[in-house]
Amino acid sequence: MTFRFDLLQTDGKARRGRLYTAHGSVETPVFMAVGTQATVKGLTPQQLLDAQVQMVLGNTYHLALRPGDELIAELGGLHKFMNWQRPILTDSGGYQVFSLAHNLKIDDNAAVFRSHIDGALFELTPERAVRIQENLGSDIAMCLDECPPANAKPDVRREAVRRTLHWAERCRMTHRRDDQALFAIVQGGTDVALRIECAQALTKLDFPGYALGGFSVGESTQAMLDALEPSADALPVDKPRYLMGVGTPLDLVLAVARGIDMFDCVLPTRNGRNASAFTNAGSIRLRNAIHKRDSAPLESDCPCPTCANYSRAYLHHLFLADEMLGPTLLSLHNVAFYSRLMGQMREAISEGRFASFCADCLVRWGGEYLR
Amino acid sequence: MTFRFDLLQTDGKARRGRLYTAHGSVETPVFMAVGTQATVKGLTPQQLLDAQVQMVLGNTYHLALRPGDELIAELGGLHKFMNWQRPILTDSGGYQVFSLAHNLKIDDNAAVFRSHIDGALFELTPERAVRIQENLGSDIAMCLDECPPANAKPDVRREAVRRTLHWAERCRMTHRRDDQALFAIVQGGTDVALRIECAQALTKLDFPGYALGGFSVGESTQAMLDALEPSADALPVDKPRYLMGVGTPLDLVLAVARGIDMFDCVLPTRNGRNASAFTNAGSIRLRNAIHKRDSAPLESDCPCPTCANYSRAYLHHLFLADEMLGPTLLSLHNVAFYSRLMGQMREAISEGRFASFCADCLVRWGGEYLR
Repeated sequence: MTFRFDLLQTDGKARRGRLYTAHGSVETPVFMAVGTQATVKGLTPQQLLDAQVQMVLGNTYHLALRPGDELIAELGGLHKFMNWQRPILTDSGGYQVFSLAHNLKIDDNAAVFRSHIDGALFELTPERAVRIQENLGSDIAMCLDECPPANAKPDVRREAVRRTLHWAERCRMTHRRDDQALFAIVQGGTDVALRIECAQALTKLDFPGYALGGFSVGESTQAMLDALEPSADALPVDKPRYLMGVGTPLDLVLAVARGIDMFDCVLPTRNGRNASAFTNAGSIRLRNAIHKRDSAPLESDCPCPTCANYSRAYLHHLFLADEMLGPTLLSLHNVAFYSRLMGQMREAISEGRFASFCADCLVRWGGEYLR
Repeated sequence: MTFRFDLLQTDGKARRGRLYTAHGSVETPVFMAVGTQATVKGLTPQQLLDAQVQMVLGNTYHLALRPGDELIAELGGLHKFMNWQRPILTDSGGYQVFSLAHNLKIDDNAAVFRSHIDGALFELTPERAVRIQENLGSDIAMCLDECPPANAKPDVRREAVRRTLHWAERCRMTHRRDDQALFAIVQGGTDVALRIECAQALTKLDFPGYALGGFSVGESTQAMLDALEPSADALPVDKPRYLMGVGTPLDLVLAVARGIDMFDCVLPTRNGRNASAFTNAGSIRLRNAIHKRDSAPLESDCPCPTCANYSRAYLHHLFLADEMLGPTLLSLHNVAFYSRLMGQMREAISEGRFASFCADCLVRWGGEYLR
């Protein structure tokens, strides 16, 4: 087994650690750039490295449907296919099945649905979810889970947790690759007791890492934080904790304060494509005419290639002219902003000043980055 | 005056030379990547360097309308605005006025038209065309010309040449920047006598370089070559010759054989965005299902980053998934293909074997790259 997690330091509940994978090590807390379809939208792998990205997430659902996990295996695996030689985590497809697939039918055996691409029938069992991810060859794979919406009724939630636990056992049984770590996913929505029950049951199965799923599905930030903290507390101290699909810069800071080690989110790239930049002074809408003559970079103290080389006026021009380079340069900055934020958090934890860092972020950003 | 052209060697009519500009030197024959709106579509300046691009073309018409040449001057000029520190040539806007503008009215004083972006009224005089390009700060500027379609009647052609000559005199009179070379444009369509007359009249005005405009506007390749050769012959030997807006790889080889030194064309980037790759074995349509499982690069002997790192299967996937990285990686390869072709031509001329290189290209490509 190649995978290992070292917890290096704690500061309150915030944790500074290191993941070791078959494709190198990762400093935590870490933000993973989202590479849904075997590419982080608009960015080359070189640009990801320029943005200090340590790790990328691939989506099992999308890749299984197109181009297909067996094809990717035949071509040497996802790392080679997309030319990314550092660590990759793949999700299980559970979330996308519930948010994207058509005609979903689910029972204890499988989720059966039609592809959102071509309507083809697809059956996703826990065994198939693992086999797909073994074909992709990611460094971290996720168990198949059931992910109901935030407003799901209590019995739907409870049933989803029961099935998620059942599926986690089957995933664990079928998983073979020893160069890949299989993480389990805690469900339970905003029901704290249910979350803790789920976390404890999964912990008994002894996974190398645990995720908190089913957040960022419509609940408020406060509801997320209220459920997140006791859920994280219920997980083993020596294993990494991954908060799936979250979130804004402030979400990340508040979740690290509650003991989370890993994140992924589409916000930096999606906002980048939509002409919105993350900065320490709040978000900047590049289409706004106020930037037309502005020779300043997005952030004067940002070391990313976009801030080193381009003015707001140029970025404004690119978006007005509908040029591809606008989304690319802004995605690059936003991903670099997230990387830098994680680096600042790691440094603050190492130096035992995470509480004041966290307070600074709250003061600096106000409600700007709260959902 | 910073600008200089050294004719280093000839091989038949093919010429090997070097341009010296305020932003460095350029080996000729050279292909310039087209950066219409202050960006080569889909590529960063770093990627242009990776593709061995020596020089970029900017479009006066587009940049004057948006973001405006005065704004670009205020921000330090086009090189700084778009972060391209090597040479830039700007066209005069003549061609775009005739192909893109609305409600065009033209007389000896000016071309008056409405912007294709917002309908704003715009008056382009020869003096304004020069001032715009001086504001942009390109290394080579072009005189304003009148560019009629290939099927224009003889009297329309003759009138366009008369006005182009009149405008060239006015451009020359008003041009001030001594870190910028002003080239004149030969018009006359496929009328050889008219072309020669135009070339001789412009030569008398003694410009530092000359362009052949009004090609690639609907005429056949043969008609272009028939008019191109005597027109080039009518130009001074010691000045660079630029064939505007042309063309396919074979066009470039055939034009270099007739004494052309400089080219620009949208084909490599436009075809790249449309999933079509240039290769020595002919063009490749990346959307074709034949590439689905193909682990080979576009060209095994191509040194570009796309060929070094990605399979045809991956490129096929990117285009099917409508991912931005597809157009970017294919544009990168196509521009690198053009750069490599120019390098091979320079080498063949240096070694006195351009005729056989030219014959090899004709045999290799057959009708593939003829328009």
